[in-house]
Amino acid sequence: MAKRNPRLEDLREACVAEALSIIGETGLEQLSLREVARRLGVSHQAPYKHFPSRDHILAEVVSRAYSAFAAYLDQRPRHADPHADLHEMGLAYLSYAHDHPLHYRLMFETQLPHPTEHPEMMRNAKHAFALLRDAIAKLPGHPGPAPPEMHALFVWAALHGLVAIMRCSALDTLGLTADTLQQMIPFAMGQIGLTLEPQPRPDR
Amino acid sequence: MAKRNPRLEDLREACVAEALSIIGETGLEQLSLREVARRLGVSHQAPYKHFPSRDHILAEVVSRAYSAFAAYLDQRPRHADPHADLHEMGLAYLSYAHDHPLHYRLMFETQLPHPTEHPEMMRNAKHAFALLRDAIAKLPGHPGPAPPEMHALFVWAALHGLVAIMRCSALDTLGLTADTLQQMIPFAMGQIGLTLEPQPRPDR
Repeated sequence: MAKRNPRLEDLREACVAEALSIIGETGLEQLSLREVARRLGVSHQAPYKHFPSRDHILAEVVSRAYSAFAAYLDQRPRHADPHADLHEMGLAYLSYAHDHPLHYRLMFETQLPHPTEHPEMMRNAKHAFALLRDAIAKLPGHPGPAPPEMHALFVWAALHGLVAIMRCSALDTLGLTADTLQQMIPFAMGQIGLTLEPQPRPDR
Repeated sequence: MAKRNPRLEDLREACVAEALSIIGETGLEQLSLREVARRLGVSHQAPYKHFPSRDHILAEVVSRAYSAFAAYLDQRPRHADPHADLHEMGLAYLSYAHDHPLHYRLMFETQLPHPTEHPEMMRNAKHAFALLRDAIAKLPGHPGPAPPEMHALFVWAALHGLVAIMRCSALDTLGLTADTLQQMIPFAMGQIGLTLEPQPRPDR
C-alpha cells in the first residue's frame, strides 16, 4: 500500500491540531493561519485551502471542544433518579474543567468568533447546554415557575464560578483551612441542588 | 509656597498609578519596575526606592483594588432586613464587576503575588470577604449546619460565575432571547437567596 502523505491528505486535521497547540503554548493572540503554516512547515497558502480565515480555524477548534465536552458529560454514570443524575452531571462538569483546562478555557473564557457565522460551533455549544437544560426539565415536580433554561443558566453560572474561584489566587489570600477548602465542592453541589428542589411557596 | 516636585514627592503614588495603567493597557505580563520607570521618565532605579520588586508593586495595586471594592460594598444602601441587605450587597458586587472590570480582573482573575509575603494585600482581601461572611452570619434562623464562611464561598462563586458568563462569548452561542438574558440576573439573585433560607429538614 502506498504511504499516505499526511501533509497533503490530513492537512486539515494537522492544521486544527496545530492551532490548538499554538493556543495552548503561546496564547490565542498568536493564532494565525500563517503561524499554523509555519509550524507545520507548509506554504503560507496551504491552510487557506481548508480555512478561509483565522476565525474559521478557531471556530473549528472550539466546536470540537464543545463536542468533546458534551460527549464527556454524556458518558457520566447514569442514575434513575433525576436529581442524582444532575448531581453526576455537575461532577462531570467539574472534572472536565479540571482535566481539560485548555478546552475549558476555549469554550468559556475566550473571545469566540461570531457564532452565526460559524453554525457548527454554535450547534455544538447549544447541544452541550441542552444536556443540562434537558436534565433539569426531567426533575420531578417543578423547581419553580421559571423555564428549565433559566435554571440551567444559573446552574452553569454556579459551576463555572466554582471552577474559577477554586483556581484563583484570591482564594489563597483568605487563609481558609484545608478542611474548608475540601468541603467547598460538596457543599456547593448541595447548594445548587437546593435551588432545584420543588419550591412550594407561591411567592417564589 | 515652593512648588512640589511630583516626581520626587509623589513618586510612590505615580508608580502605583502607572503600574495600573500598564496592566490595563498592555496586560499584566508587561508589568515591570523598569517599564514603570520608563513610562514615568525616571531612572530605572527610582521605583526600587519604594518597591523591592515587581510583585511588591503588583501587590500594592491589588491591595488597593480590594480596599476600593470593600468600600464600594460598604456604601450600599442599607436595609434593616438581613436578607434584603445581602441582596443589596450582591447587586453591589455585580455593579462593581461591571463598572470596574480592571480592578475586578486584578482581584479575581489574576495570578497574584504570594499572599503571606504581602500581608496588606491579604488583609484587604480578607476584609472584603468578611463583609459577605458577616452579612450571612446575621441572617435570622440558620441556613443550615455549615458555617457562614462556607455559605460565603458559595455565594461568591455563584456571583463570580454570573459575572463571568454574562460577559463570555459562549453565552452568545446559545441563541437565548433578550427576555431570558434580561431575567438572568434577577433570577440568579433569587436562586442564591433560596440557598440562604433556613433549611428545616434535618437531612440538609
